[in-house]
Amino acid sequence: MATDSAKYTLIYHAGIPGRGEFPRLFLEATATPYEDTALTVGQDAVKPFLDGSFDGSDANPLPFAPPVLKHGSVVISQTSNILLYLATHASALSVDDPALFHAQELALTVLDLNNEIHDTHHPIAVSAYYEEFKDEAIKRAGDFRKNRLPKFFKHFEDNLQRSSSDYLLSSGPSHADLCLFQVYDGLLFAFPRLMAKTLPEYPKVRNLYERVKAAPRIKAYLESDRRQKYSMGIFRHYPELDEPEEK
Amino acid sequence: MATDSAKYTLIYHAGIPGRGEFPRLFLEATATPYEDTALTVGQDAVKPFLDGSFDGSDANPLPFAPPVLKHGSVVISQTSNILLYLATHASALSVDDPALFHAQELALTVLDLNNEIHDTHHPIAVSAYYEEFKDEAIKRAGDFRKNRLPKFFKHFEDNLQRSSSDYLLSSGPSHADLCLFQVYDGLLFAFPRLMAKTLPEYPKVRNLYERVKAAPRIKAYLESDRRQKYSMGIFRHYPELDEPEEK
Repeated sequence: MATDSAKYTLIYHAGIPGRGEFPRLFLEATATPYEDTALTVGQDAVKPFLDGSFDGSDANPLPFAPPVLKHGSVVISQTSNILLYLATHASALSVDDPALFHAQELALTVLDLNNEIHDTHHPIAVSAYYEEFKDEAIKRAGDFRKNRLPKFFKHFEDNLQRSSSDYLLSSGPSHADLCLFQVYDGLLFAFPRLMAKTLPEYPKVRNLYERVKAAPRIKAYLESDRRQKYSMGIFRHYPELDEPEEK
Repeated sequence: MATDSAKYTLIYHAGIPGRGEFPRLFLEATATPYEDTALTVGQDAVKPFLDGSFDGSDANPLPFAPPVLKHGSVVISQTSNILLYLATHASALSVDDPALFHAQELALTVLDLNNEIHDTHHPIAVSAYYEEFKDEAIKRAGDFRKNRLPKFFKHFEDNLQRSSSDYLLSSGPSHADLCLFQVYDGLLFAFPRLMAKTLPEYPKVRNLYERVKAAPRIKAYLESDRRQKYSMGIFRHYPELDEPEEK
């Protein structure tokens, strides 16, 4: 494909890891050269992709929201779609290999969990301030702690248990493992008490997290200035949402 | 690929269109032979895919939730992933064609809208009865009517406006158009008053819906017993969530 030698450019909001972190980790893990406009340009880089004035807008649909990936003349959006593109272009997976669809299936489930984590602090209106619907957030976070996080983590633990490799898939490491690493890492920031209480039940998930974190390229990335800090993005630490004392 | 001549089996909850409807419409629109276990087996068909006892469970990950697609020895889940599989196997799209990723991007955005529609009646806990968090549902539906539906529909209208074909993509019809048809159809059931008020602002979206609905294979499907009715799935009609009278 003509564009495969072209440069990858990742466009995402500046200042938070957010959904941009999933493709960013893939690019870092595979040592794929890329420009991260959150670092090189800043927040202004996002605007043309939302108002339709971006270079190549005649041949590519208008993105709904960042992250956006630019690769030569190809512009695509939606986090899981960018991972799919990278898996089939920057990496070697083929549609003839069921592992592509298995990795995609697990990555999508991790991204569903990521959305549910977002919704713990924004259960009613994404455009509202947290404080506006704080009572509803406390209710939703309660359900998340009691039902949703255990359901998702049990699912990942079960798949790791069934895998013949040390990764989610028997075929070996994939973008699904990187996605699970990222959500686990964000949960340690947002829900430290819940995670401390819950994690002993999911030893294989914890082990996967620790191994991905210690992998040389990921370790170097996490220690670099390229890794942005959690603050007011998807992962937020509100103590009242994180496993309050029993009363 | 050896499995390409194998039979497609779609496994989804019996009794509602739900998320199974997106791959179902693709299979119907492309005249791809398939078995729909919701009709041939009923709800029992789902169980082995959730407890891990399904045929082929040694070589395929455990699904998180239906829909599930079985094709020869390949078993995959996640709605958008099933669409991707069908687009590259039952249909002819290739990863060398940016249209695959553009269709996937737009389909994922429609599926995001689909999730937000679900959350209007379940904003706090998916496992709770609607009535348990009805006050919160009324708040969330208010934000959906005022902010979210217009944001999504404007996005689809803008992309139709920019397209050089009569479909979301200049390259022609894709699974993204079928997804938008389905969500639009479900919204007419769940939010008839909102849609009556809003739709004149999105003439190209309405036109796409009408054309897909009148396409011969889709029309025949919709008139058949294979099309299940809306009831208590993603699309539910609660009058109090649908554009109450101004007070």
